[in-house]
Amino acid sequence: MSVSDAPAAVDEARLWRRHMSLAEIGATAKGGVDRQALSEEEARARALLAEWASELGYAVSVDGISNLFIRREGTDPALAPVLTGSHIDSQPTGGKFDGAYGVLAGIEALQALDEAGIETARPIETVAWLNEEGSRFAPGMMGSEAFAGLRPFDEIAAVADRGGTSVADDLPRAFAATPGAERRGIGFPVAAFVEAHIEQGPALERAGIPIGVVTGIQGVRRMRVRVTGEEAHAGTTPKSARRDALWEAARMVDALQRRIHRDDEHRFTVGMMEIRPNVPSVVAAEVLFSIDIRHPDSDTLARLEAEVDGICRNSLVACDVETWTIAQAPSIWFDDGVVDTIESAAVDLELGNMRLFSGAGHDARQLSFVCPTGMIFVPCEKGISHNEAENASPADLADGARVLAETLVRLANG
Amino acid sequence: MSVSDAPAAVDEARLWRRHMSLAEIGATAKGGVDRQALSEEEARARALLAEWASELGYAVSVDGISNLFIRREGTDPALAPVLTGSHIDSQPTGGKFDGAYGVLAGIEALQALDEAGIETARPIETVAWLNEEGSRFAPGMMGSEAFAGLRPFDEIAAVADRGGTSVADDLPRAFAATPGAERRGIGFPVAAFVEAHIEQGPALERAGIPIGVVTGIQGVRRMRVRVTGEEAHAGTTPKSARRDALWEAARMVDALQRRIHRDDEHRFTVGMMEIRPNVPSVVAAEVLFSIDIRHPDSDTLARLEAEVDGICRNSLVACDVETWTIAQAPSIWFDDGVVDTIESAAVDLELGNMRLFSGAGHDARQLSFVCPTGMIFVPCEKGISHNEAENASPADLADGARVLAETLVRLANG
Repeated sequence: MSVSDAPAAVDEARLWRRHMSLAEIGATAKGGVDRQALSEEEARARALLAEWASELGYAVSVDGISNLFIRREGTDPALAPVLTGSHIDSQPTGGKFDGAYGVLAGIEALQALDEAGIETARPIETVAWLNEEGSRFAPGMMGSEAFAGLRPFDEIAAVADRGGTSVADDLPRAFAATPGAERRGIGFPVAAFVEAHIEQGPALERAGIPIGVVTGIQGVRRMRVRVTGEEAHAGTTPKSARRDALWEAARMVDALQRRIHRDDEHRFTVGMMEIRPNVPSVVAAEVLFSIDIRHPDSDTLARLEAEVDGICRNSLVACDVETWTIAQAPSIWFDDGVVDTIESAAVDLELGNMRLFSGAGHDARQLSFVCPTGMIFVPCEKGISHNEAENASPADLADGARVLAETLVRLANG
Repeated sequence: MSVSDAPAAVDEARLWRRHMSLAEIGATAKGGVDRQALSEEEARARALLAEWASELGYAVSVDGISNLFIRREGTDPALAPVLTGSHIDSQPTGGKFDGAYGVLAGIEALQALDEAGIETARPIETVAWLNEEGSRFAPGMMGSEAFAGLRPFDEIAAVADRGGTSVADDLPRAFAATPGAERRGIGFPVAAFVEAHIEQGPALERAGIPIGVVTGIQGVRRMRVRVTGEEAHAGTTPKSARRDALWEAARMVDALQRRIHRDDEHRFTVGMMEIRPNVPSVVAAEVLFSIDIRHPDSDTLARLEAEVDGICRNSLVACDVETWTIAQAPSIWFDDGVVDTIESAAVDLELGNMRLFSGAGHDARQLSFVCPTGMIFVPCEKGISHNEAENASPADLADGARVLAETLVRLANG
């Protein structure tokens, strides 16, 4: 199939400059980004996106959960748009590209279509979904979950951060960031969704291949474990009288790692632990810790989830334990039509490509329940992500944007 | 030996009322106290002590590190005073009696001497030492260490809490709490120091004995362990590529508990753990945890301290580890003369008593390096301390204050 003029209009230097400008907002000393959902920094990033959109003549809108949309009109404005995008929130010690790339590649693609003089029947919208990361308000994927009707607005609005501030409390900050934006309801018909993202793993770099055609997203279980012991004085309380929640939690973490994190196919992480009172001279009364389990096979995942409680109980000495699941998602497979369109675009652009299954969760999971969906991955340095050292090459980012631009043209005219 | 009229003047109800009044400052929902060093709450507690002292006609003074002194004059003001007291700061989820008892028993003893019409040759001063607990500014015992010349003022002043506020930043708040207090230099000659305290262990209650005559304080090592790994994405990073600081710290905590916390004679606690970035979907890059080891035998303690580094290294998988000691104290034995005086007072008052070695550290340790020192313990419910449920009986508290009053009379006239 012949390629449109859009990919050739993608400007590598311009795309890189926008990444560096966005990364200044919430920049950390170590070269990363701290731009958590609904923070001051995230609001400033929203304002910058809206400023770019206005300069390019695109309409900006926000829905009731503060998902931000930038629209390039189609020749038939009544048709459902093709959507692209990702998120601009980050982990507290996140990188410059996770999420941001999908939004900036989306803007770059719209601009490339303009410069190539291409009209599409369908409108194309680039979206920044609210709170993909979930580090401040857990669990994440809030914007895409609300959009896809997978989670009620009121439930999301009530989620509070560790300081007790709720999503509802801070939503006004997001709306205030784009005062000129049209307000929309949550959720509308979409013809297709394509999300560009850094791989966040080592496969593309190791293979020396610039384009990943993503076939699906591996399932995940997010759990919490609460170990309850009793506060006691470190100097006077004998071992036999202790109920040490921190020690018993440590036993559980080690046992879970040994029993569940069997090999490289299993992904098991305890990344968060909150200890009370968390002072050196007091035996801990309570520990709450997180569990994140992922596996491509949904049955295996369900079996691993079921093992957690027993492993924790077997690690008990004198405390009590409680385990529960806060979020679960089966593995999903993307739409064949969208996956094939992305693959054909890469092939026609003569860019090396391979099919991949995503280890990380993305907003595309939620969209896959309401419209044909796919993802484009580009390599990131050493596969490092959720880390201030996260990096990607300008050339790889531009290649991904070229595949995205061509994919959008085909979907919006298809 | 005949008993003075002071013990009979000790007023159980008054002493209990003062405990309940002081406990209102920083009161927690669960009946405990959060009154950390140099906080707003601790400043209000200082103001209340000064108010009581003024009502009773005692002079109030503060030294350069904000130790607070309440002085009952002697017939020879030039003689070095006998000192009693403890501390009014608490753990973040502390109880009503830890520290507070020693200060309030001291005030009660002074008032009992007044009411009994007893004059003493030496002045008697009741002191509240700065920051015994060390939960906010670590390590604790700051006031008594400065007083005893064991730690330079500048080093203490520079210690910062987790929010970056230093002792020097917050000292003005303590001084402002007692505007009428005379300012004094740090450290002066003391004839003897006697500290009354709840036992914080179960021995007196189990034995049904109201008075503990403390013979010494067991040694302690306070250490820190830093485990350094690498931040990585929980969904995409295979086990073989991870350097998970939280998992490896958990392995260390469990190994240390099994190897060092051998039996009830050994006291080993990991009570504090700080994890970075501490979010569910990110493999932890760094964990810092505390170690508190205590044992009556100083050689054993030194041997246990020396084992820590090797045990941590043996638990490593892919991270790095660093261990260091932040505070060390050998076991100490109190002055025979003071211990005998306390014991005789209890015997002469016909109060059941037993000799005890203290598992917890106290300001009396520091004072023991500069003057003859001893301690009086009273039972606390189930031995529970450093806990909001900490409790003691009004009768036991009053009995301790009676022994204290008589001991002070004997030391101040001795």
